[in-house]
Amino acid sequence: MSAHADPLLLGPGPSTPYPEAMEALARPVLGHLDPDYLALMAEVSDRLRAVFGTANELTLAVSGTGSAGMEACLASLLQPGEKAIVGVNGYFGERLCEVATRGGAEVVRVEAPWGRALDPADLLDAQREHSDARLLAVVAAETSVGVRNDVAPLSALADTDTLLLVDAVTALGGTELRVDDWKVDACYSASQKCLGAPPGLAPVTLSPRAVEVMRARTTPVRSFYLDLGLLHEYYLAPSHRYHHTASSTLAYSLHAGLGRLLDEGLEATWDRHLAIGTKLQDALGKRGFGLVADAANRLPQLTATLLPDGLEEAPLRVELLKRYGIEVGGGLGQFAGKAWRIGLMGHNARDRSVATLLAAMDDLIT
Amino acid sequence: MSAHADPLLLGPGPSTPYPEAMEALARPVLGHLDPDYLALMAEVSDRLRAVFGTANELTLAVSGTGSAGMEACLASLLQPGEKAIVGVNGYFGERLCEVATRGGAEVVRVEAPWGRALDPADLLDAQREHSDARLLAVVAAETSVGVRNDVAPLSALADTDTLLLVDAVTALGGTELRVDDWKVDACYSASQKCLGAPPGLAPVTLSPRAVEVMRARTTPVRSFYLDLGLLHEYYLAPSHRYHHTASSTLAYSLHAGLGRLLDEGLEATWDRHLAIGTKLQDALGKRGFGLVADAANRLPQLTATLLPDGLEEAPLRVELLKRYGIEVGGGLGQFAGKAWRIGLMGHNARDRSVATLLAAMDDLIT
Repeated sequence: MSAHADPLLLGPGPSTPYPEAMEALARPVLGHLDPDYLALMAEVSDRLRAVFGTANELTLAVSGTGSAGMEACLASLLQPGEKAIVGVNGYFGERLCEVATRGGAEVVRVEAPWGRALDPADLLDAQREHSDARLLAVVAAETSVGVRNDVAPLSALADTDTLLLVDAVTALGGTELRVDDWKVDACYSASQKCLGAPPGLAPVTLSPRAVEVMRARTTPVRSFYLDLGLLHEYYLAPSHRYHHTASSTLAYSLHAGLGRLLDEGLEATWDRHLAIGTKLQDALGKRGFGLVADAANRLPQLTATLLPDGLEEAPLRVELLKRYGIEVGGGLGQFAGKAWRIGLMGHNARDRSVATLLAAMDDLIT
Repeated sequence: MSAHADPLLLGPGPSTPYPEAMEALARPVLGHLDPDYLALMAEVSDRLRAVFGTANELTLAVSGTGSAGMEACLASLLQPGEKAIVGVNGYFGERLCEVATRGGAEVVRVEAPWGRALDPADLLDAQREHSDARLLAVVAAETSVGVRNDVAPLSALADTDTLLLVDAVTALGGTELRVDDWKVDACYSASQKCLGAPPGLAPVTLSPRAVEVMRARTTPVRSFYLDLGLLHEYYLAPSHRYHHTASSTLAYSLHAGLGRLLDEGLEATWDRHLAIGTKLQDALGKRGFGLVADAANRLPQLTATLLPDGLEEAPLRVELLKRYGIEVGGGLGQFAGKAWRIGLMGHNARDRSVATLLAAMDDLIT
């Protein structure tokens, strides 16, 4: 690695971090039981509560990526043989099914075609049919297709024995998400998208009733590393019982990203993502690019776009990275070879990103 | 967090990283499928092979801490109901038992008192008694008591159907460890100790016969995040199949720490740790401090030391951190309240660390 690349990260994530989040990486490393580190983590939890829109005490950052956050929630809440209803309209819905199945759960799938939003009525119907389900899981922002799934109507689950689990990996900090108002019981995200920090940490929050479910387990969580009960004891209980050697480096950086976001204001950040995403989507339409998602459920922070006839996606995407140092993502599943996924998240949800990308595309294509 | 502390990290880890490893954190973030990132990870794997002393193809860094490395190995190699023989003479032997048990394995414990080394003959005897055991696990450097467990004699397991799994979290880069020569089948470590980088990554290597065992599983690995088969496909297979959004930030830093170590030379690094550790241990003896481990199996990189009568460990340790900004660790288990654990690892395995610590201790105690 003689030369260091500095790509403009406009793929599905990681996004280019806020400058403050990069600067924070340089801070001296703290021990994982240093009172200063534990105070830092308490502040990270406070900031996460503000961004999640929750008063949940169990709110913390898991030492892993978004997938670790997904597995921590599923592994901590589901016991083998229990039922999980999963909404599937893209790659990350599929991943929820896989992680739950590996964990020994029985999965009930509720599907919509990739690229269409899930119908909340279908999900609630499935819960009525499977009222013994331990949880119902849905991806708020399906990164694979740029689709927003409605979460608010699922708050009706609060009147049942089924917990509501929400994947907010791409949603958190980019579009409206209100954990307490929407009665979400478990929610996880990732540091490297709309929160504007490098990858490595997965914010997680559990409602008091989810914590109760976890505490009432009759079998231990199969994973030690991702056991949210143990992580709670380490980060948030007065005992701060040692669990693993957490990275103050990543914590400082997430802390800084969250600080930047909260200084701007949560709703202002959502507005910024909406304005910039819409700008890109309009410009793509003018250039003959299609949009995978319908307008009603289209995400602003992650756009799945179909290339016009005659343009080959992979060679063009490789050229964009090689010559212009701009990363966009390829399509997944049925959109592989046909679509790009363009992220405008966190620090990159700004005019310069769109202008640069469009200029490079025009340069390459014409 | 208005002020930033910069503790001298002389506890059981993290250790203060090499300056090169801190500088590397500032490099621009790369996408997790960027060819430059995948080339970086290929170099990280090459460097890890050199440090592990192995030609194992499946050699990579798991996106998590040492505990994630432990769980990745146990979860990927053990199927529910299979037998694991575990050597226990300290906290991390106990953790191996817990992680294996949670994973559904049947654990056979082979014990030595905390602070004494395991007798390899006892471990081999246990394997003869339980010749159906899938693996036998031992901690090469028991961080909780500063004891080195002999691994070389366990190479006899190569003639059986039982895999040899070695915890090298504190050992790797600090004291002799030879994965291929000692016929180790699975080995994991952590970035933040003798490798001289911040926490967050767990180097792992599997022998071809361990890979065969993993491939012959009849049940899927219960963890998606820590499935070494999937991680192999992502990092090392030509397909580079997407698995999770790995952190180039941590990878750059580990790459730099490993580079520094290999520039010095692996054996030279072991010699340096031995010289500095012995120097500290001699000086502690002169001050009336006891040593938990016998000379024959005492680690140089991690010293568990008993405080002389009349000195209270916790207040003194807190004072050392508050006034001098020096972190040492407290004792664990039966040594809680009686012992310190002092790490001289990676960048801190040098004269200045010992001189500074002793000067501060003399200052505080006299």
